[in-house]
Amino acid sequence: MHGPTATLLLSCPDQLGLVAKLSSFVYANGGNIIHADHHQDFEAGLFLSRIEWELAGFNLPKEIIAPAFEGIAKPLGATWQLHFSDDRPRIAIWVSTQDHCLLDLLWRQQAGELKGEIALILSNHEKLRAIAEPFKLDFHHIPIQKEIKLEQEAQQLALLAEHRIELVVLAKYMQVLSDSFLAQFPQVINIHHSFLPAFAGAKPYHRAYGRGVKLIGATAHYATPDLDEGPIIEQDVSRVTHRDSVDDLIRKGKDLERMVLARAVRLHLQHRVLSYGNRTVVFS
Amino acid sequence: MHGPTATLLLSCPDQLGLVAKLSSFVYANGGNIIHADHHQDFEAGLFLSRIEWELAGFNLPKEIIAPAFEGIAKPLGATWQLHFSDDRPRIAIWVSTQDHCLLDLLWRQQAGELKGEIALILSNHEKLRAIAEPFKLDFHHIPIQKEIKLEQEAQQLALLAEHRIELVVLAKYMQVLSDSFLAQFPQVINIHHSFLPAFAGAKPYHRAYGRGVKLIGATAHYATPDLDEGPIIEQDVSRVTHRDSVDDLIRKGKDLERMVLARAVRLHLQHRVLSYGNRTVVFS
Amino acid sequence: MHGPTATLLLSCPDQLGLVAKLSSFVYANGGNIIHADHHQDFEAGLFLSRIEWELAGFNLPKEIIAPAFEGIAKPLGATWQLHFSDDRPRIAIWVSTQDHCLLDLLWRQQAGELKGEIALILSNHEKLRAIAEPFKLDFHHIPIQKEIKLEQEAQQLALLAEHRIELVVLAKYMQVLSDSFLAQFPQVINIHHSFLPAFAGAKPYHRAYGRGVKLIGATAHYATPDLDEGPIIEQDVSRVTHRDSVDDLIRKGKDLERMVLARAVRLHLQHRVLSYGNRTVVFS
Amino acid sequence: MHGPTATLLLSCPDQLGLVAKLSSFVYANGGNIIHADHHQDFEAGLFLSRIEWELAGFNLPKEIIAPAFEGIAKPLGATWQLHFSDDRPRIAIWVSTQDHCLLDLLWRQQAGELKGEIALILSNHEKLRAIAEPFKLDFHHIPIQKEIKLEQEAQQLALLAEHRIELVVLAKYMQVLSDSFLAQFPQVINIHHSFLPAFAGAKPYHRAYGRGVKLIGATAHYATPDLDEGPIIEQDVSRVTHRDSVDDLIRKGKDLERMVLARAVRLHLQHRVLSYGNRTVVFS
Repeated sequence: MHGPTATLLLSCPDQLGLVAKLSSFVYANGGNIIHADHHQDFEAGLFLSRIEWELAGFNLPKEIIAPAFEGIAKPLGATWQLHFSDDRPRIAIWVSTQDHCLLDLLWRQQAGELKGEIALILSNHEKLRAIAEPFKLDFHHIPIQKEIKLEQEAQQLALLAEHRIELVVLAKYMQVLSDSFLAQFPQVINIHHSFLPAFAGAKPYHRAYGRGVKLIGATAHYATPDLDEGPIIEQDVSRVTHRDSVDDLIRKGKDLERMVLARAVRLHLQHRVLSYGNRTVVFS
Repeated sequence: MHGPTATLLLSCPDQLGLVAKLSSFVYANGGNIIHADHHQDFEAGLFLSRIEWELAGFNLPKEIIAPAFEGIAKPLGATWQLHFSDDRPRIAIWVSTQDHCLLDLLWRQQAGELKGEIALILSNHEKLRAIAEPFKLDFHHIPIQKEIKLEQEAQQLALLAEHRIELVVLAKYMQVLSDSFLAQFPQVINIHHSFLPAFAGAKPYHRAYGRGVKLIGATAHYATPDLDEGPIIEQDVSRVTHRDSVDDLIRKGKDLERMVLARAVRLHLQHRVLSYGNRTVVFS
Repeated sequence: MHGPTATLLLSCPDQLGLVAKLSSFVYANGGNIIHADHHQDFEAGLFLSRIEWELAGFNLPKEIIAPAFEGIAKPLGATWQLHFSDDRPRIAIWVSTQDHCLLDLLWRQQAGELKGEIALILSNHEKLRAIAEPFKLDFHHIPIQKEIKLEQEAQQLALLAEHRIELVVLAKYMQVLSDSFLAQFPQVINIHHSFLPAFAGAKPYHRAYGRGVKLIGATAHYATPDLDEGPIIEQDVSRVTHRDSVDDLIRKGKDLERMVLARAVRLHLQHRVLSYGNRTVVFS
Repeated sequence: MHGPTATLLLSCPDQLGLVAKLSSFVYANGGNIIHADHHQDFEAGLFLSRIEWELAGFNLPKEIIAPAFEGIAKPLGATWQLHFSDDRPRIAIWVSTQDHCLLDLLWRQQAGELKGEIALILSNHEKLRAIAEPFKLDFHHIPIQKEIKLEQEAQQLALLAEHRIELVVLAKYMQVLSDSFLAQFPQVINIHHSFLPAFAGAKPYHRAYGRGVKLIGATAHYATPDLDEGPIIEQDVSRVTHRDSVDDLIRKGKDLERMVLARAVRLHLQHRVLSYGNRTVVFS
């Protein structure tokens, strides 16, 4: 395995020499690239890139890398993020009453699969409080009250700030976040219990049963103000037959949901996902 | 392998003793059941069944089986079909300009995979005429002319009658059949180039690309007057990534389409599919 | 949903009238069949069947069903089992040091997915003891000591008897059971971390990496004295690429292992699996 | 779409600055990179790379690119290939008596899916000669005669040379090539009708049936003197059940075989596959 690494995620208008400029920046400073992948969206005229290199042997101190790189990025008109693998982003998991995605993420954290730290559980119900305890996690219960939604969102945002949360995972939270919330905290991954865009909205398994489909799906996407319209990170499906009742679809769907959500969260925490418009590039 | 068999496909209101009554009818007449599968739709209060038995050793002559069985079926309020495996249903394939599904079905027919006989190709274009020749198939070109659609459908129905066609396969025909056509000839299987109900309607691959999905699909279904709403027989999906252009989706989709359509046609010809409402039971 | 049901799993030499005889037994006694599926292995000349019916309205008391059915089964030369859905088989899970399959099964038990009751955890290590506590399960640590293996197996068998265990699940137990153990307690499901028969034996992920495969798999099977040769209940695979290290294969494999093992255990507990020779029929 | 491109496939001992050096070579000569992907095998200490750039605007004439690049490659100790997208490698397909893979590849060539040109069909049987005619392809029948195998291989090599063949595709050829043949013509892709390493050797479907597996597979790999041990390019699987006879496995397997082989051939012709030892990197 490697020691700590730096990862650059960048997008900019396509132009000559981008790979050379980015990789030369790393090389000129003594860095050993361990992953470099690039993509062009020719329709959008966009270049998107992920470069990861070892910090050991790199000649720039961590705090100087970003300002030094800005000299290259600015003339390119680039949007970019720089991440260090020894920074572990803090995560809040938001749940309602279903525990399967939450348990699965907590187990993966313990197993060392997630390059982040689950620090907070937030729920609109009390039901899952007991799960937080053995993991020594803060559990906050904020029941949904429509009349004071703005107030509650302020409270939620304060909690995220207080716990220095960088990623919210909606692990079957089943509630819509307001535009204003997302404007202030845009790093939110949601799991939708269907193969989007099929069965967007409520009760997808009931509707899948009603339509008589032969496959059900799940979709992990970044949350956006347009419900179920956010950039898709990962999807998967399971086969069903006429023997499967709605309850069977829900049961099979749970396995899909936790797998798909976990993959998306893992990819995000590895800084492998770049979203633009309603699309993602997944550098996997 | 077996000699010729009889297959009964039946649905009726659920009630006690159905499996016993059906299997006893076969046994009492000396038949050896080689496949028996049943399903209850508890919501609909419906029993659905498929029973297949060997004709060798069966005491009733073929032409007497149906009238004899009617004595059992009538009191049950059953809808039923009786098929003999040595009857090979005649099939018409309708195409537009794309050849992949057509060729795939023709290859499968040659390989003995389909329990039926492709007898006729009908197209609204001349483009695929050359494919019919080496297979010694009639090819009929009926261009779409909206003003005389009724007349054309009469012509199509006459062709189906003349060739004693029992199944129409829309192998990328890309045209809607009228209610009146389907009322007169309801046995029509269509392939839709998306994972229905996602991307129903036109240009599904362009829309899938636009939505940034991570899987594309195909759906084989019985045609109904409600376009893309018919009972689904089979679906499947393929993984795509940000590297896949619309052309790549179309190319990958072709493989999905021909596999999914071929499976659906094969299942139908084995009398393994019972449709009711907008659902199917697939006794596979 | 249904009330309690009876399920008959039967195999016998193929002969005329089997479906009729079995279903008539149920019908004659007033039973409502909710699942009936049959299979013939023509090579082996064997008929295999699963019939499930509602106990409500059935005229025979539970304790009379088996002796009454013996009158039908005996002349057929049948091997059969009768199960009642309100009997919940007691399960022992055997583990070594890996927790993922154990936790997954415990979660599923809590979620009501398993028609059985996990009653006992047995391990050759202390490591997973803490998992047992919140679930209020007995945890027994029996370290492997080759010199006294027979003694230890006697101890294990005594534990199974004491807890009235009907099914042992080897959830990454990583040890071979002796012929003598399996002769005394044959109902054992194992999960093997490869797509059998590929990579039977030790370190399958290392060998899969070494071979450069593009898919890895997992296999749930009944344990037999021939290691990794038992009848396969369920298998599945995941795609891997050149980017995946051995550690990645192990991580991806864990998800496969718990899904495949859980499906196999669930199918077994629903009495949907009949094994004969080194094969299974899965009535799903 | 793009105009013609150049593609560099390179491997060399891992060292600092490789991405920078390769991409700077392209940039310094005015090239627009449209695909760049790299991989490190840390165990083997190997760097592997694929870079594709547009020839339009590139300052070096095609015939100078290789000699110019050698100046960079040599000090790196690199093994490399340079390909131009407007060169269409000529392909020979070798078959025995099964037509499904051959027909599928011919159809894909017509559909424009393959960046190459099928120029020759070679078979040890006469059976498939008729397929070659409508495609205006040379068909050569060289029956297997063990006593004169060396002579026959000389004849085969002469045919490949005469037709300037760059890739041989064994599309169910079912015969082993000698070490000497492969030493003289190493670019050979084979399709094996199992999920290797399971069921290497003969009659894999019969053995899969015998083992009672729940999935069957197919594997496309480069041919090597060790039969069925060559570097794997692509694999896939299909679900089977107890209802599937050996004939069903063979039928389902045909679909797998043609899909897997076609994907492998397509990837190879796009110069996306680098093999080293018994492994491949697939830059897809």
